[in-house]
Amino acid sequence: MEPLFVVFLQSGITEKYIIKIMYRTNTCGELNLQNAGQTVTLCGWLQRSRDLGGMTFIDLRDRYGITQLVFNMETRPDLCEKARKLGREYVLQATGKVAERSNKNPKMPTGEIEILVEELNILNPAKTPPFTIEEHSDGGDDLRMKYRYLDLRRTPVMRNLELRHRIAMLTRNYLSDLHFLEIETPCLIKSTPEGARDFVVPSRMNPGQFYALPQSPQQYKQLLMVAGYDRYFQLARCFRDEDLRADRQPEFTQIDCEMSFVEQEDVLQTFEGLLKHILKEVKGLEFGAFPRITWNDAMKYYGSDKPDIRFGMKFIELNDVVKGKGFGVFDNAELVVGICAEGCAEYTRKQLDALTDFVKRPQIGASGLVYIRCNGDGSFKSSVDKFYTPEDLQRIAEHCNAKAGDLILVLCGEKMKVRKQLSELRLEMGSRLGLRKPDEFAPLWVIDFPLLEWDEETQRYYAMHHPFTAPHPEDAPLLDQPERWGDIRANAYDIVLNGNEIGGGSIRIHNRDMQNKMFHTLGFTDEKAQEQFGFLMGAFEYGAPPHAGLAFGFDRLCAILGEADSIRDFIAFPKNNAGRDMMADAPSPISNEQLDELAIRLVPQEEK
Amino acid sequence: MEPLFVVFLQSGITEKYIIKIMYRTNTCGELNLQNAGQTVTLCGWLQRSRDLGGMTFIDLRDRYGITQLVFNMETRPDLCEKARKLGREYVLQATGKVAERSNKNPKMPTGEIEILVEELNILNPAKTPPFTIEEHSDGGDDLRMKYRYLDLRRTPVMRNLELRHRIAMLTRNYLSDLHFLEIETPCLIKSTPEGARDFVVPSRMNPGQFYALPQSPQQYKQLLMVAGYDRYFQLARCFRDEDLRADRQPEFTQIDCEMSFVEQEDVLQTFEGLLKHILKEVKGLEFGAFPRITWNDAMKYYGSDKPDIRFGMKFIELNDVVKGKGFGVFDNAELVVGICAEGCAEYTRKQLDALTDFVKRPQIGASGLVYIRCNGDGSFKSSVDKFYTPEDLQRIAEHCNAKAGDLILVLCGEKMKVRKQLSELRLEMGSRLGLRKPDEFAPLWVIDFPLLEWDEETQRYYAMHHPFTAPHPEDAPLLDQPERWGDIRANAYDIVLNGNEIGGGSIRIHNRDMQNKMFHTLGFTDEKAQEQFGFLMGAFEYGAPPHAGLAFGFDRLCAILGEADSIRDFIAFPKNNAGRDMMADAPSPISNEQLDELAIRLVPQEEK
Repeated sequence: MEPLFVVFLQSGITEKYIIKIMYRTNTCGELNLQNAGQTVTLCGWLQRSRDLGGMTFIDLRDRYGITQLVFNMETRPDLCEKARKLGREYVLQATGKVAERSNKNPKMPTGEIEILVEELNILNPAKTPPFTIEEHSDGGDDLRMKYRYLDLRRTPVMRNLELRHRIAMLTRNYLSDLHFLEIETPCLIKSTPEGARDFVVPSRMNPGQFYALPQSPQQYKQLLMVAGYDRYFQLARCFRDEDLRADRQPEFTQIDCEMSFVEQEDVLQTFEGLLKHILKEVKGLEFGAFPRITWNDAMKYYGSDKPDIRFGMKFIELNDVVKGKGFGVFDNAELVVGICAEGCAEYTRKQLDALTDFVKRPQIGASGLVYIRCNGDGSFKSSVDKFYTPEDLQRIAEHCNAKAGDLILVLCGEKMKVRKQLSELRLEMGSRLGLRKPDEFAPLWVIDFPLLEWDEETQRYYAMHHPFTAPHPEDAPLLDQPERWGDIRANAYDIVLNGNEIGGGSIRIHNRDMQNKMFHTLGFTDEKAQEQFGFLMGAFEYGAPPHAGLAFGFDRLCAILGEADSIRDFIAFPKNNAGRDMMADAPSPISNEQLDELAIRLVPQEEK
Repeated sequence: MEPLFVVFLQSGITEKYIIKIMYRTNTCGELNLQNAGQTVTLCGWLQRSRDLGGMTFIDLRDRYGITQLVFNMETRPDLCEKARKLGREYVLQATGKVAERSNKNPKMPTGEIEILVEELNILNPAKTPPFTIEEHSDGGDDLRMKYRYLDLRRTPVMRNLELRHRIAMLTRNYLSDLHFLEIETPCLIKSTPEGARDFVVPSRMNPGQFYALPQSPQQYKQLLMVAGYDRYFQLARCFRDEDLRADRQPEFTQIDCEMSFVEQEDVLQTFEGLLKHILKEVKGLEFGAFPRITWNDAMKYYGSDKPDIRFGMKFIELNDVVKGKGFGVFDNAELVVGICAEGCAEYTRKQLDALTDFVKRPQIGASGLVYIRCNGDGSFKSSVDKFYTPEDLQRIAEHCNAKAGDLILVLCGEKMKVRKQLSELRLEMGSRLGLRKPDEFAPLWVIDFPLLEWDEETQRYYAMHHPFTAPHPEDAPLLDQPERWGDIRANAYDIVLNGNEIGGGSIRIHNRDMQNKMFHTLGFTDEKAQEQFGFLMGAFEYGAPPHAGLAFGFDRLCAILGEADSIRDFIAFPKNNAGRDMMADAPSPISNEQLDELAIRLVPQEEK
């Protein structure tokens, strides 16, 4: 990267001219001892000031760092007086000589020097901000959302947005070098009732009609494959009008990709390559081939389709070793399954109770927790000693590969339910033991997802991914056997990082007969399929190539690489959980003239 | 750029494995004599086929080019029979040996070779497309819009979208290297009644309230400056619900930029640098400093704020030399102004009549056209010989720097109106004389725009740019003299390329007093200013730095560099002039359930 202002020099303009036309000669993050003696001009915000009587110090902050300004009462009483009156966040321009500091601050890149100010301009005064602009602010969430432009000044938030920019650039250059084209697809598209809820946009020119905002560019990217564009990507804004769960946004960004004439292996290699490249450039980490796990195994060993493999603690199924000993709860359970927490045998009663409370919370819903302590002396202590002899417990411990000092935690119940519960407990134990380090990265592929998902309420199958996902070639014949539909694997894959699904995709159906079979399976009539997917199905008749794709959740990817839990501080202007922009106060009422032009009316309050 | 499939090799997978997992070993654009003898697999679409009895030839097309496949009736009658039955746009996979052609085609990169096919798979059949997929299609506009995915297959459209991708990458890398951060601003924002018409989005979670789609990220980018982000850019999707003039789109993309601590000179240098970089990389052209012209001079010499300076033909004001000779039409006109068309003295009566008809068209509205032929023999012939002696005409010709053989064309009337009319005539003459070459590029800056524009209808001044544009420092005092408001220059600038405004921007007001004065000038009450710009004005109180910005119209920039007149074929999925996506058939009605959820109703037809 080039120094900040070199562009003006390259244009043949002299340095003197720069000083004249620019507000500053340097940033607040770049001066050091090598610059001592130079006269510089800096601009920035007043971070803090200290008035020591004879001297006043000001920390001047910009995007690049902080530099200390010095005002001396003896040599420049006028400037010193002026400096004393300045408040936090004033915008200043200061000119002076770079001087070596007597007490250096080795923690700051500019900590060796300070500026002996000779000229000071107040570019703009500032009201006192409602919270501190520091690494950790004293502002609450709501206040920081309302004054987002002040929260954005904080260094950690700046670092997040810089990281986001960097990952976007790395992604674009990587994919572009592989002949992917970034192609912008429209934001004003057709509303389709399937899937999540669309945001819609009334059309003034076509009264009574609406555009929808895209939930993803799915259909357009498939059309681009039909159009022969063979390697497409887009950092695409997507919109979903969902009731917002924590850390969801009504608009979000995905790295949307599609390729033609490829098999699953090509897609996996390509995007594994992308993620490796990003991890290397951003984190300095090198990875071999990412592990792959089938959906079935992910559920069996982690109880989750997005396992956090930064730590082990794999599930051990215990039916064979615990049943038939007279403990009815286990005997009647479809699945008894446990994890082994290394070195946790010393957990106190209180700690074990806390874990029991954890799994019994309504969000998790287990009815109880069984533990087996593998004591240091080789003995065992469990909550089910009544039913199991020390030999039984030893057998269980051996089955779990538990050593002296370990703690075995066991849940039981309906297979899929108990797996989910134990997954939560496993993650909780991982957190308690400090095994989920934000600066450790463990990517993996989850493959062979089920194609179809049974919905109890509507008593029909739904596409787990979307109706254009191809079945696993080996399982395609099962589409003719309705009783086996639940067993069909999809040619679909997710990429998981640190327990988060950061991307997913599938091989698409490009064959008309297969697509018809799929619609039939999903209970679509021909008319309904035509209505919802008509133009895409039409396009497929004019020569659709075999194609496949994947999309990364860009906000989440940035948050994980930024080692944060929430995506909110990786988005410049996020909305709150009610979908409101608290700073701009949007959404808001619009005028009757606007409504009239759009040929719509509000439903009166009393009718709601 | 790397060869297409090298990524898989880098991952340590053998070439054999690639052939197994990939549908193809090469693209249709890369094979030449050096590959002779190799066995390759290609995929693509059937461009055309020729059945010569003993041999059948197929041109196979993909994004990268066209390769000739050969089927021999003698050696492989089965394959030859199969090949004969294939229709246009079938998706094929062919394996065979690369062989030297007997009659080479030097126009094609792959014209030296052909593939002797040994295996042929039909990956997908295709219905016969409704128009030809060729350089120049036989399809009409509507048909091509409806089957956009087929139109996108045409090579010129592919080249356009590749160019767009390339310019986007060049822009991003250039700005990123200069420490600009790309920051995504929201698409669901607050509606403001000023400016063009917003598209709005009803909020389900906040019934009766609406988001707006951004007309530009203007306020957000200024907030980012307040937040200290100092160098921002974004390739931003923007939306305007305007009645669509030809070649306008309801959604469009701009390269949106903003900088802090800068003067106009910095902004001009920075973005001149960007455009030079793009012109060099894309067109191989090097430029010195771009010319700059004030808005006043642009109007005086070209009658346009976006002059096409690929050719001269500057205006010559003639009041001093034509008035007082008894020709009432000139004597009573505010301005008599002409252009000199070199070498056009031989224009026939018919040609001159056509030019007269051109300027009298209602869109232009001149009442007549005066010509003076500067004949080769030194004599003059004009349409106003009755009023002007040969000596008078000679004086006019000298004033115009006209030589023997040139043609002087003169219009007269109200100053600003006649300038516009003559600007149209100048462009028309430029076109007729072949002086507006699409492959020639003439950028320039237009600076010192007027700050305010008088509106006859509402009898008040409007901001020519927007209400945050700063006045020219020299003219700022005139804000206190309402009678001089029309003379105030703005600190605003446009960048013009080949007669198109491709970008524009301004220094923003960052000072509260100046902003209040500006709102006062624009007739805003404090309440109205607060209502419309409240959160931005609030932000400015917490330390706004001096800042300025610029936005390029990205679609137009791509079209000009693609040497095309219309932006439509530089957008993957454009809408027609009624704002409709003819392929997806959007906008469209939505269900009553959707309307109910959004708490809105349609106005019944009869009430409209």
